[in-house]
Amino acid sequence: MKEQIHFGPWRSLLAEVIEEEDYSSIFYVVDRKVSDLHQLELGEEKAAFINASEASKNLDTVSTLWNSFSAANCDRKSLIVCIGGGFTTDVGGFAAATYMRGVSSIYIPSTVLGMLDASIGGKTGINFRHFKNRIGSFHPSDHIIVDTRFLESLPELQWWSGYAELIKHALIADRDLWNELLKIEQQEDLRSKLDKLLAKGMSIKQHIVKRDYQEEGVRKKLNFGHTFGHALESLSLEKDTEVLHGFAVAVGIWVEARLSLEIGLLSNKEFDQIADYLHKLYPFQNIEEKDISAIMRYMKGDKKNIHSSINFTLLEGIGNAVTDQSPARGTIEISLRSYIDEYKKL
Amino acid sequence: MKEQIHFGPWRSLLAEVIEEEDYSSIFYVVDRKVSDLHQLELGEEKAAFINASEASKNLDTVSTLWNSFSAANCDRKSLIVCIGGGFTTDVGGFAAATYMRGVSSIYIPSTVLGMLDASIGGKTGINFRHFKNRIGSFHPSDHIIVDTRFLESLPELQWWSGYAELIKHALIADRDLWNELLKIEQQEDLRSKLDKLLAKGMSIKQHIVKRDYQEEGVRKKLNFGHTFGHALESLSLEKDTEVLHGFAVAVGIWVEARLSLEIGLLSNKEFDQIADYLHKLYPFQNIEEKDISAIMRYMKGDKKNIHSSINFTLLEGIGNAVTDQSPARGTIEISLRSYIDEYKKL
Repeated sequence: MKEQIHFGPWRSLLAEVIEEEDYSSIFYVVDRKVSDLHQLELGEEKAAFINASEASKNLDTVSTLWNSFSAANCDRKSLIVCIGGGFTTDVGGFAAATYMRGVSSIYIPSTVLGMLDASIGGKTGINFRHFKNRIGSFHPSDHIIVDTRFLESLPELQWWSGYAELIKHALIADRDLWNELLKIEQQEDLRSKLDKLLAKGMSIKQHIVKRDYQEEGVRKKLNFGHTFGHALESLSLEKDTEVLHGFAVAVGIWVEARLSLEIGLLSNKEFDQIADYLHKLYPFQNIEEKDISAIMRYMKGDKKNIHSSINFTLLEGIGNAVTDQSPARGTIEISLRSYIDEYKKL
Repeated sequence: MKEQIHFGPWRSLLAEVIEEEDYSSIFYVVDRKVSDLHQLELGEEKAAFINASEASKNLDTVSTLWNSFSAANCDRKSLIVCIGGGFTTDVGGFAAATYMRGVSSIYIPSTVLGMLDASIGGKTGINFRHFKNRIGSFHPSDHIIVDTRFLESLPELQWWSGYAELIKHALIADRDLWNELLKIEQQEDLRSKLDKLLAKGMSIKQHIVKRDYQEEGVRKKLNFGHTFGHALESLSLEKDTEVLHGFAVAVGIWVEARLSLEIGLLSNKEFDQIADYLHKLYPFQNIEEKDISAIMRYMKGDKKNIHSSINFTLLEGIGNAVTDQSPARGTIEISLRSYIDEYKKL
């Protein structure tokens, strides 16, 4: 069984897990910042330290890793341990997926986003030109080790960035969880329920992914908020600015909830509850009227689309996502314009 | 079911197959030489023409393909049709495997080697530095269309290069086929039995691969002749000379049969039969005493190795391969030296 989740101190958990498996050697791919902050002291000869940023999530970084694996004589039974956020597991995971046609990996996510989202479901990838995660593969890690001590050094903004995925998980699949989340307004609220909420969020994602590994059907539910969210990230990449993934997704959730309202899937009351809650936690992201055409273009280029229409996952009520929705272009633009016009006023 | 094999004229077979599947668009990856020789006229906007050579089996070529797929708005349901030899299906297949985390492919092999070997079993890959196929993934094509008209323009040397894989298939799994092959000494002999022999060889490979897709066990049988063969190819890459894959494998078969003799798995009589037959078909490949250490180094770096010993598949009698053999270094060198000393004299 792949992607077994373990909660606790990473070093002892990793040692336990390795003892049970037949790896020939271990190589670490580590976010340099995480390594420095937590003094991991892994030894240069068996570790590659990478600078995590959207701009370096590219083929050059992957080539460097392939090179390091080769130099360390990694073979087909070697294990790649990735320690870091979603960047590190996406890139390190892709390098592992393609080295000698695939070697094993273990993920030790160091961010809320990594724990709740990036580490689960086997998606690995890098950006290609301005297209986010255009190149990649499905390659699940053997194990995911969740050590929440890594979060102690994480900036508060990063907590909320990851939290957006939890909001999404609740909205697409679990109304009770959504009602629980509505009570969380401060970092302290989140911290006090952290283990329980992480476990809950990870199990929602894992449950969906297990039913549809290659994203042919039900897994598309997880894309709620992401068609628009990814377009906003692509736009930022083009503009050489950076937007946190969860903040882009929070805008995406707003716009796609609005779109659900526009086409009659979501009630006014439900939309208002979502909009009000997002407004409490997430600042307005600077989008202007003149960005709309670029955003539409990026959404058309999204890899979730088939036959060149724009494919959304929307909400048919809170806790219930519906996939493969292709609203008219005009309706999409109206929803997007609503964000620009209304969010600031809320 | 993946990798369905069809024999016949490619255009009509492709049209039939496509009608049954739900692809959103088609993009061709074609060996330019094949396209020119057979006047395929596919249209520049939906095809990429590549120059097939070991030296361009690299990341640059793959990047160019990803770029072409993007420019042609290929989506997740697009089909990549690869027309060419093993180079084209390996590289085009890897580009398809990693574009949007994997899109479908159909292979139309244009060489004996491509038909008998490269198109089957889902292995895709590119060279990285001097390491052959170091980067790649498992990604089986949906269909394989075998149109032997492509072979009419194939140089005779290329026929024999592909034929080496058929010899290997016979030696590892089918003594009756081996006895049949012994009668084939001229291109005309091969041509007259072509369809039957191709179908037989492909079915041996497919049978083995189906039992062990990810090469954990029985699939390693296919590596007979290849541990040494790949090292010879790596050496050629380093020296900037080119050796045909099958000619390297023919040397590999000789050396590894000799190794099987040295450690008592193969009788003198069987070894002599193999050596004599190879000698009739394949010229001496120029290997010198001073190349031995480099060849040993490349064999140690082979991705089939685990725990840094050199892993061979050897013959326990003709028609019966045994995997995971790790003879002593001295014995390996003796077998290799025998090739240098004895082959010319035969």
